[in-house]
Amino acid sequence: MSFFLGSNQYGKAGIRLVSVQRDGDRHLVTDFTVATALAGHLDDTHFTGDNSAVLPTDTQKNTVYAFAREFGVGEPEAFALRLAKHFVTTQEAIYHARVNIEQHTWERLAPHGEPAPHSFVRAGTETRRAEVIVTEDDVAVSSGLGDLTLLNTTNSEFHGFPRDKYTTLPETRERMLATSVEAWWDHDSADVDWGKSYAEARDALLTAFASTYSLSLQQTLFSMGSYVLHQCPSVDEIRLSLPNKHHHLVDLTPFGLDNPDQVYVAPTEPYGLIQGTVQRHQMVPTVGPQLW
Amino acid sequence: MSFFLGSNQYGKAGIRLVSVQRDGDRHLVTDFTVATALAGHLDDTHFTGDNSAVLPTDTQKNTVYAFAREFGVGEPEAFALRLAKHFVTTQEAIYHARVNIEQHTWERLAPHGEPAPHSFVRAGTETRRAEVIVTEDDVAVSSGLGDLTLLNTTNSEFHGFPRDKYTTLPETRERMLATSVEAWWDHDSADVDWGKSYAEARDALLTAFASTYSLSLQQTLFSMGSYVLHQCPSVDEIRLSLPNKHHHLVDLTPFGLDNPDQVYVAPTEPYGLIQGTVQRHQMVPTVGPQLW
Amino acid sequence: MSFFLGSNQYGKAGIRLVSVQRDGDRHLVTDFTVATALAGHLDDTHFTGDNSAVLPTDTQKNTVYAFAREFGVGEPEAFALRLAKHFVTTQEAIYHARVNIEQHTWERLAPHGEPAPHSFVRAGTETRRAEVIVTEDDVAVSSGLGDLTLLNTTNSEFHGFPRDKYTTLPETRERMLATSVEAWWDHDSADVDWGKSYAEARDALLTAFASTYSLSLQQTLFSMGSYVLHQCPSVDEIRLSLPNKHHHLVDLTPFGLDNPDQVYVAPTEPYGLIQGTVQRHQMVPTVGPQLW
Amino acid sequence: MSFFLGSNQYGKAGIRLVSVQRDGDRHLVTDFTVATALAGHLDDTHFTGDNSAVLPTDTQKNTVYAFAREFGVGEPEAFALRLAKHFVTTQEAIYHARVNIEQHTWERLAPHGEPAPHSFVRAGTETRRAEVIVTEDDVAVSSGLGDLTLLNTTNSEFHGFPRDKYTTLPETRERMLATSVEAWWDHDSADVDWGKSYAEARDALLTAFASTYSLSLQQTLFSMGSYVLHQCPSVDEIRLSLPNKHHHLVDLTPFGLDNPDQVYVAPTEPYGLIQGTVQRHQMVPTVGPQLW
Repeated sequence: MSFFLGSNQYGKAGIRLVSVQRDGDRHLVTDFTVATALAGHLDDTHFTGDNSAVLPTDTQKNTVYAFAREFGVGEPEAFALRLAKHFVTTQEAIYHARVNIEQHTWERLAPHGEPAPHSFVRAGTETRRAEVIVTEDDVAVSSGLGDLTLLNTTNSEFHGFPRDKYTTLPETRERMLATSVEAWWDHDSADVDWGKSYAEARDALLTAFASTYSLSLQQTLFSMGSYVLHQCPSVDEIRLSLPNKHHHLVDLTPFGLDNPDQVYVAPTEPYGLIQGTVQRHQMVPTVGPQLW
Repeated sequence: MSFFLGSNQYGKAGIRLVSVQRDGDRHLVTDFTVATALAGHLDDTHFTGDNSAVLPTDTQKNTVYAFAREFGVGEPEAFALRLAKHFVTTQEAIYHARVNIEQHTWERLAPHGEPAPHSFVRAGTETRRAEVIVTEDDVAVSSGLGDLTLLNTTNSEFHGFPRDKYTTLPETRERMLATSVEAWWDHDSADVDWGKSYAEARDALLTAFASTYSLSLQQTLFSMGSYVLHQCPSVDEIRLSLPNKHHHLVDLTPFGLDNPDQVYVAPTEPYGLIQGTVQRHQMVPTVGPQLW
Repeated sequence: MSFFLGSNQYGKAGIRLVSVQRDGDRHLVTDFTVATALAGHLDDTHFTGDNSAVLPTDTQKNTVYAFAREFGVGEPEAFALRLAKHFVTTQEAIYHARVNIEQHTWERLAPHGEPAPHSFVRAGTETRRAEVIVTEDDVAVSSGLGDLTLLNTTNSEFHGFPRDKYTTLPETRERMLATSVEAWWDHDSADVDWGKSYAEARDALLTAFASTYSLSLQQTLFSMGSYVLHQCPSVDEIRLSLPNKHHHLVDLTPFGLDNPDQVYVAPTEPYGLIQGTVQRHQMVPTVGPQLW
Repeated sequence: MSFFLGSNQYGKAGIRLVSVQRDGDRHLVTDFTVATALAGHLDDTHFTGDNSAVLPTDTQKNTVYAFAREFGVGEPEAFALRLAKHFVTTQEAIYHARVNIEQHTWERLAPHGEPAPHSFVRAGTETRRAEVIVTEDDVAVSSGLGDLTLLNTTNSEFHGFPRDKYTTLPETRERMLATSVEAWWDHDSADVDWGKSYAEARDALLTAFASTYSLSLQQTLFSMGSYVLHQCPSVDEIRLSLPNKHHHLVDLTPFGLDNPDQVYVAPTEPYGLIQGTVQRHQMVPTVGPQLW
């Protein structure tokens, strides 16, 4: 019996690249984890182990480090584009290259208020992300972020929901709303000021989260996505995955105490998980990174 | 400016369910982490926070626990099917339900070779997985596993690959081959002996990994997938994600020592990542869980 | 044969406490993970399961939540002191209570530069820590922090070390120096302005890291510890655990490229691990939390 | 102002060593993560960065790999002893060496019941551990394990505990008892059949856990520790850290269902934490690895 090879790709993941740019005495540091993935005429290696089309993943890794020196790193979207184009244009068998970059953020130290020239502290759990797909005909660029943890201590309600025989949740007019944002947004162009666009998208997410009076996390999600589309003209779709990190008011009545929205328990699990897409136009599914 | 709501779903994740069945003095334990996700007529909650179609995620969680008592847990595929069907058939607004289960494995203790009636040890890092999608018209069942870590200490080569200016990797006729299997396979029916099918699929993965003389991890992947299709008649597609967990022979020549395939370093990163699909028929993309 | 009970303690760990203080419309949020551990006349529960001296760990958890309402949370050292004293003074069998608090940091959001009244973002991977031991006679308070990741892109050398037959490391006059600080420091008093002292200690660690021209990570460690002692009069000992998170310059010569301290690989492992203690006076070992 | 250097050590951690032994066609695989830590006359590097006594951590790592080839790996206790002795005897400035090994377990695959000659699967989350301290005068060897997760579905009660105003826990005559064992035990000799002793200690822990009718986790702990001392003549002290991984019976009465010890929720946190020491003789504190 013989079977068929369907969708496939291969590459190198976990490529840790730290690059230092020296602007006189003042240094800049860029910290990426890069993953590459190539697809193309790869039937032979699957069927017989003939590797004549398989550019080694070790070579892909080498290319990342060499390009960092040859061209500099810059914005993750641009660096990913350069890498993905290289693989598709130089490898005859490869017609699809995906490059994913996660950027770890370093903040300049400023002891006594004086910015240090070459000392940094890791800022936040949050990472900036970029993913690029280059084919022989097309280029798709997505930007994103992950592990951006947000909390509103009020201005959140949840009521008016249907009740069945398994429903015990009381309606509430006052709750904490906490989430850890994971998001990807797709650009309609590969010619964007990536740094500016990212800053605007991140700012839009924070602003919409803080300013939405929330009747459901879905409403907050749609508001956050819409504000990104509003602020970032190059973005035509954003996908958001928002865990509802529950904060339950602790019942202190057994101890003769009230609890006027003050003391909460924040369990790790279970958690709600709200996932949605906001689009500029009604569109067919994207090739960008999916969240569910 | 107004925008559009695209693909979306919501539910509860991280529902930790441990169930004990008592067969006289002999107990069985089943340990699931369940996630539910519903989709349907959910525009209103996104646009205005009107929750009249939003069955609370808390209710979804309650349903999981109640069903475990009312119907027992059994095989994860069957339990997921029951839950997903319940949501679609009882909630008018919901026409798409996805239930994902990760099963943690417990092995019976046998002190002095005597099986203990109610004592267990967590077996392996490996988890069994199931995901079901139920819509008004259709049912899709996928099974899978994750974190199954495998190692061949020999019978692996890698050579004959193209070399470009960034290629430094030497060809090799002898290497370690280690991976951590993540796989999903789709069934062509919802009427399968799930336990038997899972055991056969897992056994096929192990057998093919051990018995394939490997010229590339892609070849091993295709062999593993093919053997699952061969052994499991209900499976029509399998998707595999196989990190190449590199083991590098340590260069001991600076210390006046040879290293005849004996001493290796096994770094966490970077790692190769080989991902592929094996199909019984050439098919359109599946709705089952994707790995890339 | 009968054996002896040695050192022991029991308590509740992973108590997640989030507290909101409302200062008019402006909210403050405090996020603790608390662990309690009691010791005392506990032989009976170990020998026979007689629990008459065993205040349930569930009760210890309840006490944490109740005290958060009754007394507010405030600084972690003060909250831990109150809890530990309570257990020792109210439970006859208990003569030793340890309370450990890890504080997760939230930063106020400021969309458009305007501080939001009740919206926050999780700031950094870093956590503030406090541990208190209260016995019938004594009180010991330690403060600390963890996961504070720092990087100097220059001003670090390493040379002059001994070489044996297993030494291959070249001497270097220029390297990256990165670490993730874990530290505990002990106070000579329980009457300290904890918030001010913590801010000064953290600032001293950052300042000394940034301003030390480093010939070894040990030298940096001693400098960091000394500056904390210098800035914080109540601190009489500090213990530091500093992984040397290696950044290796990538050899790009196979690709015809130089690498003038620009492109680095940052592997997860192995890592150096430098651990040391700086003391105001030469002292006997402390009861505070140990790092090795 | 000048300060004092207290207790300190330095070394390399996260040394990943995989070794293959070839017994004809049949291979054995040993998988260690090694950490070394040296102490001695190290004041100068702390005070001035003079590294003349600082054997590089890179050299320590090289020594691990070279010794694996020169002498083979064998049991972790023996390999750690050899390394620690080497550092103390060859480095004049070093009078204290600690080597810690965590062993990851691989199980031989047996497709169709036939043991495979060179194919393995990672078995369990559990790791075997060894730590050795060698000084100029003395040798201390400890063995241990971690992440051994155990569950009794019955034969556990908890009652008879004191109640204060914060106590709400009901007494129970029937509960699940789950834990994840972390343990260290010290040997009174360095001349032990390490493999046999480890197997006996592990077996004693499992047997005592399964066979103890438990009135408190403390009682189970003491029983487990005592049985190790009983079975392993070379062990004179064992330290155990046993999280009480709570399994709460779910209240199904809102859904009109009973729950006869069948359906449980197993939250990650909070958890009880029971820690204790069992000694063959009443002893002074050990130099072996501490758990709290």
